[in-house]
Amino acid sequence: MLLHLCTWPEVEAYLNRSGGIILPIGSTEQHGPTGLIGTDAICAEAIAKGVGEAINGMVCPTINVGMALHHTAFPGTISLRPTTLIQLIRDYITCLAKAGFIKFFFINGHGGNIATLKAAFAETYAHLADLNIANASQVQCQVGNWFMCGSVYKLAKELYGNQEGSHATPSEVALTQYLYPEAIKQAPLADPVSAEHKIYGAADFRRRYPDGRMGSNPALATPEHGKQFYDLAVKELSNAYLEFLNADAKS
Amino acid sequence: MLLHLCTWPEVEAYLNRSGGIILPIGSTEQHGPTGLIGTDAICAEAIAKGVGEAINGMVCPTINVGMALHHTAFPGTISLRPTTLIQLIRDYITCLAKAGFIKFFFINGHGGNIATLKAAFAETYAHLADLNIANASQVQCQVGNWFMCGSVYKLAKELYGNQEGSHATPSEVALTQYLYPEAIKQAPLADPVSAEHKIYGAADFRRRYPDGRMGSNPALATPEHGKQFYDLAVKELSNAYLEFLNADAKS
Amino acid sequence: MLLHLCTWPEVEAYLNRSGGIILPIGSTEQHGPTGLIGTDAICAEAIAKGVGEAINGMVCPTINVGMALHHTAFPGTISLRPTTLIQLIRDYITCLAKAGFIKFFFINGHGGNIATLKAAFAETYAHLADLNIANASQVQCQVGNWFMCGSVYKLAKELYGNQEGSHATPSEVALTQYLYPEAIKQAPLADPVSAEHKIYGAADFRRRYPDGRMGSNPALATPEHGKQFYDLAVKELSNAYLEFLNADAKS
Amino acid sequence: MLLHLCTWPEVEAYLNRSGGIILPIGSTEQHGPTGLIGTDAICAEAIAKGVGEAINGMVCPTINVGMALHHTAFPGTISLRPTTLIQLIRDYITCLAKAGFIKFFFINGHGGNIATLKAAFAETYAHLADLNIANASQVQCQVGNWFMCGSVYKLAKELYGNQEGSHATPSEVALTQYLYPEAIKQAPLADPVSAEHKIYGAADFRRRYPDGRMGSNPALATPEHGKQFYDLAVKELSNAYLEFLNADAKS
Amino acid sequence: MLLHLCTWPEVEAYLNRSGGIILPIGSTEQHGPTGLIGTDAICAEAIAKGVGEAINGMVCPTINVGMALHHTAFPGTISLRPTTLIQLIRDYITCLAKAGFIKFFFINGHGGNIATLKAAFAETYAHLADLNIANASQVQCQVGNWFMCGSVYKLAKELYGNQEGSHATPSEVALTQYLYPEAIKQAPLADPVSAEHKIYGAADFRRRYPDGRMGSNPALATPEHGKQFYDLAVKELSNAYLEFLNADAKS
Amino acid sequence: MLLHLCTWPEVEAYLNRSGGIILPIGSTEQHGPTGLIGTDAICAEAIAKGVGEAINGMVCPTINVGMALHHTAFPGTISLRPTTLIQLIRDYITCLAKAGFIKFFFINGHGGNIATLKAAFAETYAHLADLNIANASQVQCQVGNWFMCGSVYKLAKELYGNQEGSHATPSEVALTQYLYPEAIKQAPLADPVSAEHKIYGAADFRRRYPDGRMGSNPALATPEHGKQFYDLAVKELSNAYLEFLNADAKS
Repeated sequence: MLLHLCTWPEVEAYLNRSGGIILPIGSTEQHGPTGLIGTDAICAEAIAKGVGEAINGMVCPTINVGMALHHTAFPGTISLRPTTLIQLIRDYITCLAKAGFIKFFFINGHGGNIATLKAAFAETYAHLADLNIANASQVQCQVGNWFMCGSVYKLAKELYGNQEGSHATPSEVALTQYLYPEAIKQAPLADPVSAEHKIYGAADFRRRYPDGRMGSNPALATPEHGKQFYDLAVKELSNAYLEFLNADAKS
Repeated sequence: MLLHLCTWPEVEAYLNRSGGIILPIGSTEQHGPTGLIGTDAICAEAIAKGVGEAINGMVCPTINVGMALHHTAFPGTISLRPTTLIQLIRDYITCLAKAGFIKFFFINGHGGNIATLKAAFAETYAHLADLNIANASQVQCQVGNWFMCGSVYKLAKELYGNQEGSHATPSEVALTQYLYPEAIKQAPLADPVSAEHKIYGAADFRRRYPDGRMGSNPALATPEHGKQFYDLAVKELSNAYLEFLNADAKS
Repeated sequence: MLLHLCTWPEVEAYLNRSGGIILPIGSTEQHGPTGLIGTDAICAEAIAKGVGEAINGMVCPTINVGMALHHTAFPGTISLRPTTLIQLIRDYITCLAKAGFIKFFFINGHGGNIATLKAAFAETYAHLADLNIANASQVQCQVGNWFMCGSVYKLAKELYGNQEGSHATPSEVALTQYLYPEAIKQAPLADPVSAEHKIYGAADFRRRYPDGRMGSNPALATPEHGKQFYDLAVKELSNAYLEFLNADAKS
Repeated sequence: MLLHLCTWPEVEAYLNRSGGIILPIGSTEQHGPTGLIGTDAICAEAIAKGVGEAINGMVCPTINVGMALHHTAFPGTISLRPTTLIQLIRDYITCLAKAGFIKFFFINGHGGNIATLKAAFAETYAHLADLNIANASQVQCQVGNWFMCGSVYKLAKELYGNQEGSHATPSEVALTQYLYPEAIKQAPLADPVSAEHKIYGAADFRRRYPDGRMGSNPALATPEHGKQFYDLAVKELSNAYLEFLNADAKS
Repeated sequence: MLLHLCTWPEVEAYLNRSGGIILPIGSTEQHGPTGLIGTDAICAEAIAKGVGEAINGMVCPTINVGMALHHTAFPGTISLRPTTLIQLIRDYITCLAKAGFIKFFFINGHGGNIATLKAAFAETYAHLADLNIANASQVQCQVGNWFMCGSVYKLAKELYGNQEGSHATPSEVALTQYLYPEAIKQAPLADPVSAEHKIYGAADFRRRYPDGRMGSNPALATPEHGKQFYDLAVKELSNAYLEFLNADAKS
Repeated sequence: MLLHLCTWPEVEAYLNRSGGIILPIGSTEQHGPTGLIGTDAICAEAIAKGVGEAINGMVCPTINVGMALHHTAFPGTISLRPTTLIQLIRDYITCLAKAGFIKFFFINGHGGNIATLKAAFAETYAHLADLNIANASQVQCQVGNWFMCGSVYKLAKELYGNQEGSHATPSEVALTQYLYPEAIKQAPLADPVSAEHKIYGAADFRRRYPDGRMGSNPALATPEHGKQFYDLAVKELSNAYLEFLNADAKS
């Protein structure tokens, strides 16, 4: 179920059977010469919808822009500051918790979001505890990073070895190729590309990774790979979500 | 051109020919017993894409959640506080202005966003003026509300008269029916419904408008009407965007 | 009754008969070569006092500085950022609501305040709902813009036609001449002056409207006109305030 | 010169001869059974205008509401939170400093403002240093508390001895009686009243000082005393302002 | 008792006999050519521990960095902005008040902290009043400035006369020499040094006080003096703390 | 070199040879029935001093209170909200970067700080880029978590196996026993204790981990173990710091 395609009475009915919601969060940031700027949001959204269908769960509209300040020296990148993203997450969860949701499962497409999400959860739990909400102390948030799923990681290693890299990776590019075959891009890729993992400020990032890739060779990606990644991620995150929902269920 | 389907070199190339960008902004809020929670975001996004295609302009990912605090007594509504939305808009525009964009055209699907957007623009202009950006003083923001287009308004009056109302209107419901025919909802609608226009806090709103509608009869909506609204809005906002781009062009 | 000339026991007594309060809000900003920098605050304050006398209502001290960032390229202008003004409004209303006030009627002298005020009201309603105040959900805010009163608008059109313009208008200048005849200023006025209505950042504003006026001819103003505007605005806003107080009175 | 009665070209001319400005700041808070809620703003404004006339200096519109959170358990009190007041002061000074003002002399009527004002000055100096303003490092702020003038203090001791107290004092009440003889209030005053000086939260304050006075006997006040206080404060603060303006003038 | 050397059950037991806690707060800022950058934190911490031992009170970990923006033109200085320090103090007190602490005694080593601390207390009282804490209205904060103790001040005058000055004073330097004899520094001291007391922004401060001292001659300091200051401050602040704890005890 | 025991000219001299600084950050939070509330700050501070001595680096005063909101249901815990900690880190780094520091090495004693630190670094890089600081784009921050050092982790596994747990661990308790043998605490420890790793809000945490431990048996700790951990952590983090300093040195 997609929240944006429901009516409010449908949400009310849903809350009678479940307190869980799936929130896709991505980023709008450069992904190298051939990767789509929306890669992280596209992947998170598609997988979240897949999970929602698989286990009949409610899926929130996608948070398209996340924490990508280190990519902002490349045109087209949009980023929230961490403090803005924390307030945004706090606002989302507060609204939904007041309505009765208690289990927030973020399906995340961008490594750079993880730290700020965790900070936001802590800030939000404390905020909710200060309000007069019946279920405040039951609210739980969890992040499921599709690219860190064991099955996804294993396949990426098999297919790409150390050319997977850590940004603008062939695995995420493959997934966008599967989802948007009409937007497969070609461009010459310099070789070799820096394979270090250090991230500081935006100007430093562009100096260090001149075309935006971090040790990756996205030319290896194919739409068929993308489908495989999609299936694996949906399956693994569906299980993770169900486990999250059922935890503490007896207590 | 959809920003999320571009690569950063494509954005760089785009900036050589245009400093304009179209930003759809909606809301995730109750729309009565039969309206979709995502109505405002769905409409803004579709029309923005239509405008982008019509005039070959860049379209930003949709801001799905806006300022809808007054709807938060209905489950499924998510709202940013105005101060959060102001920071979000500031972050979006700052990133894009640093990259070279100067004309920001927001295609808006929700009346409740307008005031906060205007406040955000003022806050952002002043913020940019304090940075060392070459084009800070050229940055201009404008809001195009599709539901306030003259042609849209005229058609709504013709089709629905005073049953158009002011929230969960047949015109916006029609547009979502055209875009998502698979998500047309049926539900009994109480009659008559309050036709006043007063909006205060969330609890007051629900007392005043018990099923979420404000003087509207969305049962009148049809997908065919939706297509008409879509075409009118895309045409009128395309012209508005071009006029905005070309203003001050000679000076 | 002027709040600043009351004692706290008098306020306590007032609250036994009314939960309403009138809050004048203006701006401290350039008003062209002959308009007073305090024009918007002066007008709002005088009319608010007039309304307070007419219907025996409590009048709050004037908020002299509002949202005028677009005028800050002219010396003498002082502006709050929108986020500051939102916090200020939140603080005012929270204090007064805890004391028992529930109907907040802002008499506003500056168009540039409207958007931020509306954003502030939304932010404040949500803030109050999170506190443990008995009357939180009854709090209502409304803006009465004296310059948008139907009777005022009509007279301005009759007297000045399209030389009324939209900033540093003869109508508001006339009102200050009536209130402060000792401060009537003379200066040569360039002709013609830009009559467009576009407002972006401060530097752009000064480029676009070099002497600060927006399409207006304040030389047409007279103190006698000012008295007429004053009487019309007090009468119309007194009625608006009473209507606001009495709305929902039966429910 | 009153800023609100000037035009912007007059301010521009003023800046050619002086970079100084006088900013009255008061409070809107309970002042016992007979003191006016606006006492602190009324006194600060009148004295600031007196100083402005005496030495031909520019006077800013009065900041009517300050930091009075500890008085908020009495109806009619309005307070900014310290963080809001800091932002407000930052906004005022930033606007004025960009226009060329460098010497900010606050004439203060409320002891509770002092700490927050000092914090605000520090915050503002650092903020200005981060902007690209030519005169940022020359900006100086100073607070002149009229009630702490040596001559005022001496007269208060002579007239009232230890019945001067520390809030709702006869000296400040006298000054308001001189300025607003039409608003002299009578009410029975309990005796004795607490003479301690401890201030914590609002509920504690009202428990500790049930009618709002702190060790004072405002029944001793007369309008004639008020005139004496006014004359002394204007004289002493005029000198203080001139000294402030001339300091560092040779360096 | 040092909080950081306690277990939580020990804190729980402590709260059964006392609601008081001592919070040392200093600064990390230049103290002239021979004074330690940590002087204010070192002094506050040592005295707070002494007081804690003397009266068996709980001592919080030291707040090492305070409000020292005016010293930031000298390398090694670290300062919080006032708004950051206010949030920090609010967070400390809120956590401790929820656990049951009600009497917060700050032992302060830096004059520049005082204003912001007072602002923070006001902000915090109001914040606590909005939460649902049983003891919110009993929370009280007080600042004990060791360098303003009567006995300390008297000794400093006796030993150093007007060479005590007001920053990088021989008394505070003496105290750090007593506590850290291994870190006694020697350096030539220019003579005479400015003895004025004006503090504005950081660049201005360094121009005005080129080596960081304000009218002081720290060469007069000895470790033996330091011991005397320590003993006096511990004794006087122990009494002040006990008085603070016992105040209102009967009511 | 300890910053708080230096003078500002010593810092100036240090900056001529190094742009690096070590910042210990801990937490003030419950560590089970026998662990010290200051455990994380104590460990971070001691190891940071050890590293500073080993490689002659500057060590900043310890940030004693970090992000521990999930522990706040136990008395004695103090936590900053993530947004407060982000501002604090931003203030620290901004001051030090303006003075010339560019390499910030945080030695961290608390897992709960990591996410917020990373968010703070991102926020700070972007903030610095907006200032006019020569070295803004060279500023780099890194976190060294002593408890995640390979050598430390290996020893803990050898000594404690799966009784190491993840909070109030024998390894960190051992380190505090080595550093503060006078503060070794004894208390009966329930067995078994929850060994899960889930962390949500504070009330949930206390329900889930009733005595504060997470799967650990701190009774296994000895001061001798503590010395071993200390030596390993100092050695490994000294190397890490040197590597961090030297990275990019050639470019």
